[in-house]
Amino acid sequence: MLDAPVAVDAMGGDHAPQALVEGALLARSDGIPVCLVGDAEILGSMLPPSGPPVIAARGVVGMGESPVAAVRRSDDLSVRVALREVRVGRACAAVSCGHTGALLVAAVFDLGTVEGVERPAIATVLPRADGGRLILLDAGANIDCKPELLVSFARLGVDYARVLGVASPRVGLLSNGEEDGKGNAVVRATLPLLQATGLDVVGNVEPTAAMSGGCEVLVTDGFVGNVLIKAAEGAVQTAVHLLREEIQRSRASMFGAWLLRGAIERFRVRIAWDAHGGGVLLGTRGTVVVGHGRANPEAVRQAIHLAHSTAGGQPAGGETT
Amino acid sequence: MLDAPVAVDAMGGDHAPQALVEGALLARSDGIPVCLVGDAEILGSMLPPSGPPVIAARGVVGMGESPVAAVRRSDDLSVRVALREVRVGRACAAVSCGHTGALLVAAVFDLGTVEGVERPAIATVLPRADGGRLILLDAGANIDCKPELLVSFARLGVDYARVLGVASPRVGLLSNGEEDGKGNAVVRATLPLLQATGLDVVGNVEPTAAMSGGCEVLVTDGFVGNVLIKAAEGAVQTAVHLLREEIQRSRASMFGAWLLRGAIERFRVRIAWDAHGGGVLLGTRGTVVVGHGRANPEAVRQAIHLAHSTAGGQPAGGETT
Repeated sequence: MLDAPVAVDAMGGDHAPQALVEGALLARSDGIPVCLVGDAEILGSMLPPSGPPVIAARGVVGMGESPVAAVRRSDDLSVRVALREVRVGRACAAVSCGHTGALLVAAVFDLGTVEGVERPAIATVLPRADGGRLILLDAGANIDCKPELLVSFARLGVDYARVLGVASPRVGLLSNGEEDGKGNAVVRATLPLLQATGLDVVGNVEPTAAMSGGCEVLVTDGFVGNVLIKAAEGAVQTAVHLLREEIQRSRASMFGAWLLRGAIERFRVRIAWDAHGGGVLLGTRGTVVVGHGRANPEAVRQAIHLAHSTAGGQPAGGETT
Repeated sequence: MLDAPVAVDAMGGDHAPQALVEGALLARSDGIPVCLVGDAEILGSMLPPSGPPVIAARGVVGMGESPVAAVRRSDDLSVRVALREVRVGRACAAVSCGHTGALLVAAVFDLGTVEGVERPAIATVLPRADGGRLILLDAGANIDCKPELLVSFARLGVDYARVLGVASPRVGLLSNGEEDGKGNAVVRATLPLLQATGLDVVGNVEPTAAMSGGCEVLVTDGFVGNVLIKAAEGAVQTAVHLLREEIQRSRASMFGAWLLRGAIERFRVRIAWDAHGGGVLLGTRGTVVVGHGRANPEAVRQAIHLAHSTAGGQPAGGETT
């Protein structure tokens, strides 16, 4: 177990600070050390006497603010203070559910990038039908990407896959068809560069094939990657909603669903669409987890688990997913 | 009921001609008149004596062929002959599961576009959680799109929504966030143009919001649209697969699932991820349905139903979805 806590930006996110504080307390009850970064007075009034430590920070990034302007405006923003706790080694990782753009700029500014990395990317792990894991990047950090940037994402993704225990990660380039020559202009320009890297590149991969086990690392730009994740999430939510409506039409099927409750619970943990803690920022010097802006306490708890395990920790108790 | 049959390109698709012939016979048994276009000898040997008429065509487009080169090579390609049946009014609609690019070029060449339409788009209807329908376009016809082209898709989508019975269709621009200024370069350039059309534009829409009822028409380029559909499909397939695995771990949950079989069957019809017949080509002079390359006989049957109903027909029997 790591001694240094996970620094939680308590002021960022649609439901801040309430959801952040509650999620941090949940993660702490799982055995993960945390500290909360933000307005000392507000946070102090929300925490029990034996609560986690608070690191004072005065500023907050507004959701409409330009990322660069926000970071330039103040070095006392909660997100920047949380990142600096990581830089000086007082925290093992940082979690923020606030303005993603500002988090990225602050991460490059306050933590710096790993050698050879031009821009960090967000990696998100999706479940695959064969039980494996699919690392998708970029999940939303870099919206318009040049081919060279996509190639750097492939390298980041392969390194991350190895950290997660995949011995020989296969890299796929997200496309609308498998054949060489498929894809938009950026994809068509990227494939030959990717094939020249020496990585195990399987070529263009469609989302369906990737999710059924075609590769471990799926590379795309942050716009398409973000749309893909939200489409997958929306489709499963829609399917669950429509299935529930049909089940509620008869008592027999409601009883059937009751018999399935254990299987459904295990399924929810495996698919974890609504529980997963967001993405890991790859390419910066230090572990940073980018949570969902809409994160509820449970999602915050998962983001803290993700940050802690990515930084190399094991929870003292509780269950990670 | 329309008198003119649906012309089915029997030679296009991964499982042609077998799946096309079987699917056409299924649709015919539902009361939809069909004719099969392709190699007269092969098709003749596969059909019963009282089978549907065959329109002879010699050429087939290879999956690796350049669309323009293929269409230029011969006017006797099965897809072109099927489209010309529509043009001369001997068929009410055409269905092809072959090379999408060649189908598009042939449709523009052999049918022509509606006045004011630069390039046709493929529209696909997705289920929404609120029970409504989401018309997504472009689903794969135009890979790299300029803002003006996306605006033309919005107009095509609104017209199609009205055909489907939506009185006041709301248009969303697919993006990675709701705020103005979100999106990639093309999206950011498109939003103001879209807002100036006079259409009911709700602005940038994320996939999750669109699928839960945020708009009726969702506009994007053919690359992102195709990826979105395949991501949604892959996510639901993955979810179903993982849930099934969990259900099979206990007898009680298997009994529970058995009690749910009626609800699951109704759910499958509503969500129809694996049954839907592909997309409708919008903007050409005549009804064309673009089926999946991997279509099995059931998917071909659905594509023929879709073509027939889009052309204004009612099946004499059977059930449309």
